[in-house]
Amino acid sequence: MVGGGPGAMIGVAHRHAMWLDNQYVLAAGIFGRDPASSAAFAQSLGVDRVYYDHRDMAKQEANREDGVDVVAVVTPNDTHFEIAKAFLEAGISVVCEKPLTNDSSTAAELVAIAETNDAILAVPHIYSAYAMVRQAARMVRDGELGRIRFVAAEHASGWASAPIDQWRMDPDIGGVASAVGDVGTHAFHLLRYITGLEATRVSAELSTLVPGRPVFDNATMRLTLSNGAPATVWATMAATGHEHGLRIRVFGDDASLEWRHEDPQHLLIRNPAGGTTILAQGMASLSDDAARVTRVGLGHPEGFLEAFANFYSDLADMLRGNPGRELSIPTGTDGLIGVQFVEAAIASHTDDAAWVALP
Amino acid sequence: MVGGGPGAMIGVAHRHAMWLDNQYVLAAGIFGRDPASSAAFAQSLGVDRVYYDHRDMAKQEANREDGVDVVAVVTPNDTHFEIAKAFLEAGISVVCEKPLTNDSSTAAELVAIAETNDAILAVPHIYSAYAMVRQAARMVRDGELGRIRFVAAEHASGWASAPIDQWRMDPDIGGVASAVGDVGTHAFHLLRYITGLEATRVSAELSTLVPGRPVFDNATMRLTLSNGAPATVWATMAATGHEHGLRIRVFGDDASLEWRHEDPQHLLIRNPAGGTTILAQGMASLSDDAARVTRVGLGHPEGFLEAFANFYSDLADMLRGNPGRELSIPTGTDGLIGVQFVEAAIASHTDDAAWVALP
Amino acid sequence: MVGGGPGAMIGVAHRHAMWLDNQYVLAAGIFGRDPASSAAFAQSLGVDRVYYDHRDMAKQEANREDGVDVVAVVTPNDTHFEIAKAFLEAGISVVCEKPLTNDSSTAAELVAIAETNDAILAVPHIYSAYAMVRQAARMVRDGELGRIRFVAAEHASGWASAPIDQWRMDPDIGGVASAVGDVGTHAFHLLRYITGLEATRVSAELSTLVPGRPVFDNATMRLTLSNGAPATVWATMAATGHEHGLRIRVFGDDASLEWRHEDPQHLLIRNPAGGTTILAQGMASLSDDAARVTRVGLGHPEGFLEAFANFYSDLADMLRGNPGRELSIPTGTDGLIGVQFVEAAIASHTDDAAWVALP
Amino acid sequence: MVGGGPGAMIGVAHRHAMWLDNQYVLAAGIFGRDPASSAAFAQSLGVDRVYYDHRDMAKQEANREDGVDVVAVVTPNDTHFEIAKAFLEAGISVVCEKPLTNDSSTAAELVAIAETNDAILAVPHIYSAYAMVRQAARMVRDGELGRIRFVAAEHASGWASAPIDQWRMDPDIGGVASAVGDVGTHAFHLLRYITGLEATRVSAELSTLVPGRPVFDNATMRLTLSNGAPATVWATMAATGHEHGLRIRVFGDDASLEWRHEDPQHLLIRNPAGGTTILAQGMASLSDDAARVTRVGLGHPEGFLEAFANFYSDLADMLRGNPGRELSIPTGTDGLIGVQFVEAAIASHTDDAAWVALP
Repeated sequence: MVGGGPGAMIGVAHRHAMWLDNQYVLAAGIFGRDPASSAAFAQSLGVDRVYYDHRDMAKQEANREDGVDVVAVVTPNDTHFEIAKAFLEAGISVVCEKPLTNDSSTAAELVAIAETNDAILAVPHIYSAYAMVRQAARMVRDGELGRIRFVAAEHASGWASAPIDQWRMDPDIGGVASAVGDVGTHAFHLLRYITGLEATRVSAELSTLVPGRPVFDNATMRLTLSNGAPATVWATMAATGHEHGLRIRVFGDDASLEWRHEDPQHLLIRNPAGGTTILAQGMASLSDDAARVTRVGLGHPEGFLEAFANFYSDLADMLRGNPGRELSIPTGTDGLIGVQFVEAAIASHTDDAAWVALP
Repeated sequence: MVGGGPGAMIGVAHRHAMWLDNQYVLAAGIFGRDPASSAAFAQSLGVDRVYYDHRDMAKQEANREDGVDVVAVVTPNDTHFEIAKAFLEAGISVVCEKPLTNDSSTAAELVAIAETNDAILAVPHIYSAYAMVRQAARMVRDGELGRIRFVAAEHASGWASAPIDQWRMDPDIGGVASAVGDVGTHAFHLLRYITGLEATRVSAELSTLVPGRPVFDNATMRLTLSNGAPATVWATMAATGHEHGLRIRVFGDDASLEWRHEDPQHLLIRNPAGGTTILAQGMASLSDDAARVTRVGLGHPEGFLEAFANFYSDLADMLRGNPGRELSIPTGTDGLIGVQFVEAAIASHTDDAAWVALP
Repeated sequence: MVGGGPGAMIGVAHRHAMWLDNQYVLAAGIFGRDPASSAAFAQSLGVDRVYYDHRDMAKQEANREDGVDVVAVVTPNDTHFEIAKAFLEAGISVVCEKPLTNDSSTAAELVAIAETNDAILAVPHIYSAYAMVRQAARMVRDGELGRIRFVAAEHASGWASAPIDQWRMDPDIGGVASAVGDVGTHAFHLLRYITGLEATRVSAELSTLVPGRPVFDNATMRLTLSNGAPATVWATMAATGHEHGLRIRVFGDDASLEWRHEDPQHLLIRNPAGGTTILAQGMASLSDDAARVTRVGLGHPEGFLEAFANFYSDLADMLRGNPGRELSIPTGTDGLIGVQFVEAAIASHTDDAAWVALP
Repeated sequence: MVGGGPGAMIGVAHRHAMWLDNQYVLAAGIFGRDPASSAAFAQSLGVDRVYYDHRDMAKQEANREDGVDVVAVVTPNDTHFEIAKAFLEAGISVVCEKPLTNDSSTAAELVAIAETNDAILAVPHIYSAYAMVRQAARMVRDGELGRIRFVAAEHASGWASAPIDQWRMDPDIGGVASAVGDVGTHAFHLLRYITGLEATRVSAELSTLVPGRPVFDNATMRLTLSNGAPATVWATMAATGHEHGLRIRVFGDDASLEWRHEDPQHLLIRNPAGGTTILAQGMASLSDDAARVTRVGLGHPEGFLEAFANFYSDLADMLRGNPGRELSIPTGTDGLIGVQFVEAAIASHTDDAAWVALP
């Protein structure tokens, strides 16, 4: 692991996720820029091998017989590229936090480097690893909703409703389109994952809800999907009073579905007559895709860390060389598409919310 | 009443709303274009005076000592203007269904005629008459949410998710921007009513979700509000599986609120710390504006007809010459603003969703 | 109407319910014990004929050609018997608030008097008149739940969570088993109405949750139903923070259902696999019993007053001599069974919650 | 670990819970009665030391320097006593599934043995380890609800709504009062944990909802709490269509609270005025007791396995000799009280639901 030192919540999540299914051992890492603090933190975690430079770590771990199979990069956005590049070039697989990088050319470069070096590059849009999101994606692919006619996705979090001092609010580190990169890419990936559709163009209005904030903390986006259907994505970190606020509604000709992160073990299916059916994780009638990532069963809620562990569990399968599944985890290409989405959103905003084509 | 013959749901709603508080007697009307059917229906309702032409009705009722005080116009959209005009010119107040007319010049004309003739012109955006919507509007005006930073309104109904043959789907009668006129104006008025803000510009993408339908049944709109805050309005009749789907979320610097038509007797207030408080109609701590339109009290849900009756009750106060309240019912000016909104949405759509200024 | 003077909420509800469907005219009444206040109140309601004594009113109205068809008795519990008796003996139908009387012998007497005089005696357990309760009762009767195995009903209101000075808290007027008589009888009737089963025995523990209160404001009851299934009924007015708190869950071998008064336009059906289906009032697939008492349709919530109006609408049908329906309104016999239930609960409580047979 | 072989869900839960926080290594075990299957399963888990007899395991592990600190006993109920006894006598701490044993004398014996041997005996009523349950318990202890006046607890699961063949349905193995022992003890412990009150007497009606089942799968119980307040506990595994169905409502003079296992990261607080406040896990304003067992924070739902891991994390603290906390995990004494509760429920049922004193 690179990053995720004391106080970094995302590192906490990665570690619990690795441990939960007992498939990973945290063997080496760099836990922040301060060597002493990093070493002390590593010790508290029982991590033996501490490094101070990611190039050094990549080189040494690549040379060890018991070197790490994969490294999690959980540093601020502007450092993703250099760090991920070092490990991928050394043939070490990488889990890199989103946005993959701050521009699409470097993101594309990472994808290419991974391929060249036969390494896996995975991006933890972990919401797609929830059992009921897998169920949703399966139902759409099985045609249970009919043709998709509209999608409304939102990641409207309240975590930064008030002024806050953090690297995510520094445009040079987190990017100026913070709401799009930080949370919008999650909603966008969720939309792509469940519907199996791509976006062909985007119109975005970026705004700053918290006065004085130097980044855009709110974005309302329209998409045209690859089947021609319209869609909306709303992303913000300034939705006063919201918890995580990730929610998606997919409308088909024959039914619609709704999934909310505040109640992740349920999936709502609405039929044209107006009735709603609530499916619960663990029901025997669910798809294999959902059952495969359910641990205890009906009535035993699984949450964020289980979804994160599903991501790592699927990754473990891939690291072991198992053939991929149709519904698996996001890779570098998904990360690249996410970065392209951020760029297009900025381009649209700059042009008064005009439509901008996605690659 | 003009319109609202056999099978017309909106007429049913108006009548129950008039009766509920025992403040109105339905004395005269034209219940459809077929004289025999209209007369039979009038008899079934206990209505004594049946007419066959609205001009005739306006003239005769204006001349009677016991003539009607107000007439409800619940006919298809394209006839609103002529009918409302006839009554207003005769000095008879009018409740005219929305959209007020199919273009803003005729809408403005109606407003002017009403004023000239000292008649009331009211538009039944009745959602603003729910007790908890009044409470929401009061809380915003009292500053309990702080500065409004974002609003997300939607009227995403499922009533026309499948192909349907009805005048509302005829562009010549209901207007081509059906989703905007029929449901979008409700969401838009609700936004204006609760926030007390106007919209200065709109960007709209109209689309047709049900293949082959000759009108737009879906609209995603962005607004800029008069305080500079961004907002979104989503309007559709083709949200598969939805009930009424009217919902609004208002985000302020200090708190946010949410109201949903599926649970109208509650109002959710969220504070920046992440806690949610559910206010229930009938609580002693609510504002006078909410208490005034509550009949039985806490634990006794009031629904659509009670809200509609609140509209008629406020109108009765106005007809009796009582001075207006800050939070009362929508008038012709609100109807005109709604028609302008529809026109601007169409203009924006025609220009590839460009921003269009509102008057 | 007898009772329901200024400030009496139950009178308010009865009146709106009569007016809503325009089938009743409030023609005569006694609105409280003070003649002047009663007369003034009658005038404010537009009621022409005011009386000061119920015997006088019964006699005079019975002699008028345009005398009232039915009188609503909404006075405190201890006066129900004498008042209802006077009208029934005069051949005037009676709607009498529950509990019908304070003991079963007088309740039985009222039932007999009504029959002898060919008058209708109806008891407004109006929760059974909600569309979705009718739907529930229909589904049970149609066997969609299979054999009923357990029922959990509760009317756990918060209206008297704090000390309060009211006739309902006077054991001589409202009865000592206030929680059973006031709210428990509603839950009990709802159970009988939906399941179509009777109770054969009851075990009750009565308690006083608000210190110093001279009546029992809490009751936990066990029932054995006529098919042998166990059931529970919890009744209280001291459930701190609750709104109305009326809720029923019926478990069958093949499915279960849940209905809550806080969300009355929906009905939850749960299947053995763990899925929940939410049925909404107005859906085209609902039974005739539900459709018959739905006014506007899907997405337009109906509440307490509409249910109350359904009661009066069914009563109007009966007054017109229409043949009864399987699912209609509670009559004197239901009221008598309710009083027997209260008596048995008290007897059980007195015997340390021992089982007591119901007649 | 003893028990928890292939297919045993409870073993799965224990293992994930141990792993999640990386504080436990699963080092030794007996995974079922078949040696070959047990050995193969151990290997799949990476467990080095496999035994075939619990006495042998206890002896050998006690003698090893790197012997296990604690053993989880997750076998059928009738074997708990012998197995737990063997480890405790060897000075090895034990996590023993509930009900601790099938009678209170053996349960008391285990408690005594644990004390004598300075070993920890813990019972995984893990619902008390949810962050929001800890929050609830803290709020009650801090007096935020005022005097507790009533409690309604239920564990009404649907897992055995249909006939099922399993040791839990064998009265000789799981006990005849299956609903009380299996799920009722969870609801009962939750009630004790949150309120801090004991029960002084119980009245129980046991029944069999699924025809032909040889155990009682349904129990309605009344309790009198140590402060004199009444309470109810409903326990069943045959609540058709329910998920886990664990839910508790605690009513105080000043407020009430509600927690449901289907939405475990929220806690509802209701005030006497009728307003409801929803507290969410991760809010900064929550108590230390809740914050201490929260991993990622607001908006990141934690579920059953996290609660289970909280149990193991608290246990790890105790194994390290850290002083106890007021709100920690259930021990042998709690297990003993649970067994006494089961015995009293059976005694009451046998005596026609008469009141039976609890020790």
